Amino acid sequence: MAFVSDILAGDIRAAGRLMRGIDMQLPESLETLTHLYPHTGRAHIVGVSGSPGAGKSTLITGLISAFREQGKTLGILLLDPTSPFSTGAILGDRVRMQTHALDKNVFIHSTATRGNTGGLSLAVPGIVAVMDAMGKEIIIVETVGAGQDEVDIRHLAHTNVIVVTPTMGDDMQALKAGILETAHIFALNQSDHADAETAHHLLKAMIQLSQKDDAAWRPPVIKTIAVHHQGISELAEQIAHHKHHLEKVESPKQTSDHMQGLLALILRERFMDTLRVELSENSRWKKLLERMAQRKIDPYAAAEKVLKQLTHT
Amino acid sequence: MAFVSDILAGDIRAAGRLMRGIDMQLPESLETLTHLYPHTGRAHIVGVSGSPGAGKSTLITGLISAFREQGKTLGILLLDPTSPFSTGAILGDRVRMQTHALDKNVFIHSTATRGNTGGLSLAVPGIVAVMDAMGKEIIIVETVGAGQDEVDIRHLAHTNVIVVTPTMGDDMQALKAGILETAHIFALNQSDHADAETAHHLLKAMIQLSQKDDAAWRPPVIKTIAVHHQGISELAEQIAHHKHHLEKVESPKQTSDHMQGLLALILRERFMDTLRVELSENSRWKKLLERMAQRKIDPYAAAEKVLKQLTHT
Repeated sequence: MAFVSDILAGDIRAAGRLMRGIDMQLPESLETLTHLYPHTGRAHIVGVSGSPGAGKSTLITGLISAFREQGKTLGILLLDPTSPFSTGAILGDRVRMQTHALDKNVFIHSTATRGNTGGLSLAVPGIVAVMDAMGKEIIIVETVGAGQDEVDIRHLAHTNVIVVTPTMGDDMQALKAGILETAHIFALNQSDHADAETAHHLLKAMIQLSQKDDAAWRPPVIKTIAVHHQGISELAEQIAHHKHHLEKVESPKQTSDHMQGLLALILRERFMDTLRVELSENSRWKKLLERMAQRKIDPYAAAEKVLKQLTHT
Repeated sequence: MAFVSDILAGDIRAAGRLMRGIDMQLPESLETLTHLYPHTGRAHIVGVSGSPGAGKSTLITGLISAFREQGKTLGILLLDPTSPFSTGAILGDRVRMQTHALDKNVFIHSTATRGNTGGLSLAVPGIVAVMDAMGKEIIIVETVGAGQDEVDIRHLAHTNVIVVTPTMGDDMQALKAGILETAHIFALNQSDHADAETAHHLLKAMIQLSQKDDAAWRPPVIKTIAVHHQGISELAEQIAHHKHHLEKVESPKQTSDHMQGLLALILRERFMDTLRVELSENSRWKKLLERMAQRKIDPYAAAEKVLKQLTHT
């Protein structure tokens, strides 16, 4: 297949076209992906998550430069709808990004398509696979930190970088809720802020408390000032360090967990697609919905009825 | 059933016990809910969404006072894990909240249980139904704004209040991504901030641009300074105003859409439960997961296989 070999050769236009097809979940695009898939699995996938305004875009711009200096090829997938990359809000970043955009070893794709469930969209694993098949050695996926994105990206990324700032006291609180366990590296950005030392100590204490004694990897906290390009090389180094760590210690169990999470992610989105069709107007569930509205059946009992019809459980 | 009548009589201890059972999705609790459900549908459900730090808790504290002055009974459900109510981070709020906690006409429940999909947990519609059955006239549900929560709460709440602040430039950007369409009222909190006027104009312009010409309801923007109790009574007034609006104009189509969304929400969570069992270790999908790890099958094709087995689609 000519198209497949174009992608494997790193053809940017072919890749962009396929990614748009995957975004729309076109059957022919998914079939191409099936042919590409045996050629994937070489890239190191890095998730960079953090709230809007934490400085993810500037950090990623810095990471691109750092990895390019080492001669690595890169794929960048931007999923934060508030990202300066996507919105053009920060001119400086755009200019710097355009510099990278002219570098044919850096492939940048931005998608606003998000799954209805709020996590990574159905397209994301596919787009990452295309970048992987293109031969990109490092793939950076930028996601909004708040909420559940990290938990989704965990199944896709090998290394999860969480970006926090000293000014985000509330974000620090949010870290308690399941994010700590999924993070591999913390970037404490804006570390020239007056509260940086306090935030640093707090973060380190939280990591220590959340760690199991036998943990093989303790997430480091890297102080960065992205706008002044400080701490970036250390961050890039820690990413490489974590990659080596994984190559040494990752067990078949971890790989299986990873695949399981990825499969669950896609199944959930596919099931939601089914639901959208099933529950649409004038469907076979019209009567049931009416009875719900009349409070004759509660939503849990109604869900049970639908589930019995839709699934073999 | 004695237990059902206790709840209908507003018994706080019985209600708390049932809510914990619903949190755990105990079959007997869901059965009690089935008996309670015909007694629901009277409450006006208000979603209050906004990023951590936007001032949701302080606004809600103010709203409780405003509605109590009108003699209304209230149910409050807190879902933001970073909320000062939950974490005790803001002492002042806690003290004020305790004042309300001693008021037997205000029932406050806080749950950290969140669905794995990051949206409202499976328990939330049930907990709201219990409050409704208890006879609470207004039920306020506090959720984290970022991400998809609003889209979930849309199916549960009659009136969606979105809290934004002038300092959240990035949050403003995020508003573009689907939230504007689901909002009924905006509270522009911290409206004494230097950028408040700019934010106000921006927000109004965004609302105008997102509105369909024939829209019967145009979301008002209420300037609030929650810490000084400013704008609260206007906010309470707009909530009542929107309630009357719904009573006048809500069509059977809207009710059906609402029920459809609620059903989809529960079905999604139930399906995720099924997946957790199905894909667990040493399941019938072990081989498939291995083949995925070996890149012999791509995740979309693998998902197709599982879906064929699990569902009738």
